[in-house]
Amino acid sequence: MAQIKAYVFDAYGTLFDVHSVQYRCEEVFPGHGIQLTTLWRNKQLQYTWLRSLMGRYEDFWTITRDALEYACQTLGLDHRPEQIDPLMEAYLTLSPFPDSAEALDSLVGTPCAILSNGTPAMLRSVVKNAGWEGRFQHILSVDAVKVYKPHPSVYQLAASELGVKAQEIMFVSSNGWDAAGAKTFGFQVCWLHRTTEPVEVLGIQPDRIIKTPLHLKEA
Amino acid sequence: MAQIKAYVFDAYGTLFDVHSVQYRCEEVFPGHGIQLTTLWRNKQLQYTWLRSLMGRYEDFWTITRDALEYACQTLGLDHRPEQIDPLMEAYLTLSPFPDSAEALDSLVGTPCAILSNGTPAMLRSVVKNAGWEGRFQHILSVDAVKVYKPHPSVYQLAASELGVKAQEIMFVSSNGWDAAGAKTFGFQVCWLHRTTEPVEVLGIQPDRIIKTPLHLKEA
Repeated sequence: MAQIKAYVFDAYGTLFDVHSVQYRCEEVFPGHGIQLTTLWRNKQLQYTWLRSLMGRYEDFWTITRDALEYACQTLGLDHRPEQIDPLMEAYLTLSPFPDSAEALDSLVGTPCAILSNGTPAMLRSVVKNAGWEGRFQHILSVDAVKVYKPHPSVYQLAASELGVKAQEIMFVSSNGWDAAGAKTFGFQVCWLHRTTEPVEVLGIQPDRIIKTPLHLKEA
Repeated sequence: MAQIKAYVFDAYGTLFDVHSVQYRCEEVFPGHGIQLTTLWRNKQLQYTWLRSLMGRYEDFWTITRDALEYACQTLGLDHRPEQIDPLMEAYLTLSPFPDSAEALDSLVGTPCAILSNGTPAMLRSVVKNAGWEGRFQHILSVDAVKVYKPHPSVYQLAASELGVKAQEIMFVSSNGWDAAGAKTFGFQVCWLHRTTEPVEVLGIQPDRIIKTPLHLKEA
């Protein structure tokens, strides 16, 4: 494999714990936290794929809100601004996983970037909330290319902005399908296997599978 | 609205009942029928969208098998050919919904077509199994364009093959996201609302919402 000249991280589920949203959901809708969070997340991803295929891009803030509205309707829950707004705000203050900061420290000296579905404003907010300003060479949003992962234009954005060849980039994602998209594009890929989910059966494998980003530096 | 010159039907979940697969799943994996069917169907759709976005098309038979393998792995179920093959075969003998045949009868005189993610062989098989040979002017598979719904190329295929303008086609699907894709393309669209699911929040609405295809002719 080519020498690694940059690390590119997915944000949601990789550096930041999306399931911290669950606590907020449970507060607003007692007894429905897990179910709402799961539905919301699934629908959010679906909408990124569907809108990309239909050629009807809307940004991730809009899609996230639309998905929440759908999820609330499915469960028969109110979705007036009083309920919706505090849940949306949870996305602006997602906590990093406990191992994220130390993992980033271990990579000092090699450029690091974020490449995410999130809007620039959403990403700035979580990075600031984590106290990580200045930590990344680039914070890249699909909003620049108006199509979502795993479309190759998204991964190309990172290669272009970093000025590094695809095969010299190590892309790190906890989302198996994102890892498959990045590998298809030509990155070296590390699937951060934070859960017990099987490998996606998409005909392509990540180069590495690790349980914590603390192991990124080891290979 | 323009006069309707052709009806184009989605197959799975619209004319044919995908959940008849559930009984077979329950036979092969007692106690896991519903869970396996749901996971399988979700993953099957995911893989159509993901592979379309990645530009790595495989036909629906392959994707359906891959999704089943993933679903079995998730639930810790065996997925050797002894288990997998009978479940895959269920897709070749899906039952039509009880109201499908009468609905098609009610439209005699107007060309009808199927436009489906299924492979030509899968579609031929279910049409034959239903005793519907000769009933459709066209049985169209996305396999001709190597990308899945809701990509506009799929809907264009129907307009081109039927030789009818998009706005003169009434497209009928029970899948809200498919209805959104077809409406985006330019068809008149009827969402066949067989379940209690909310309307997809995708910024576009079907022209009609009906609970049974028997109501197609009424407008």
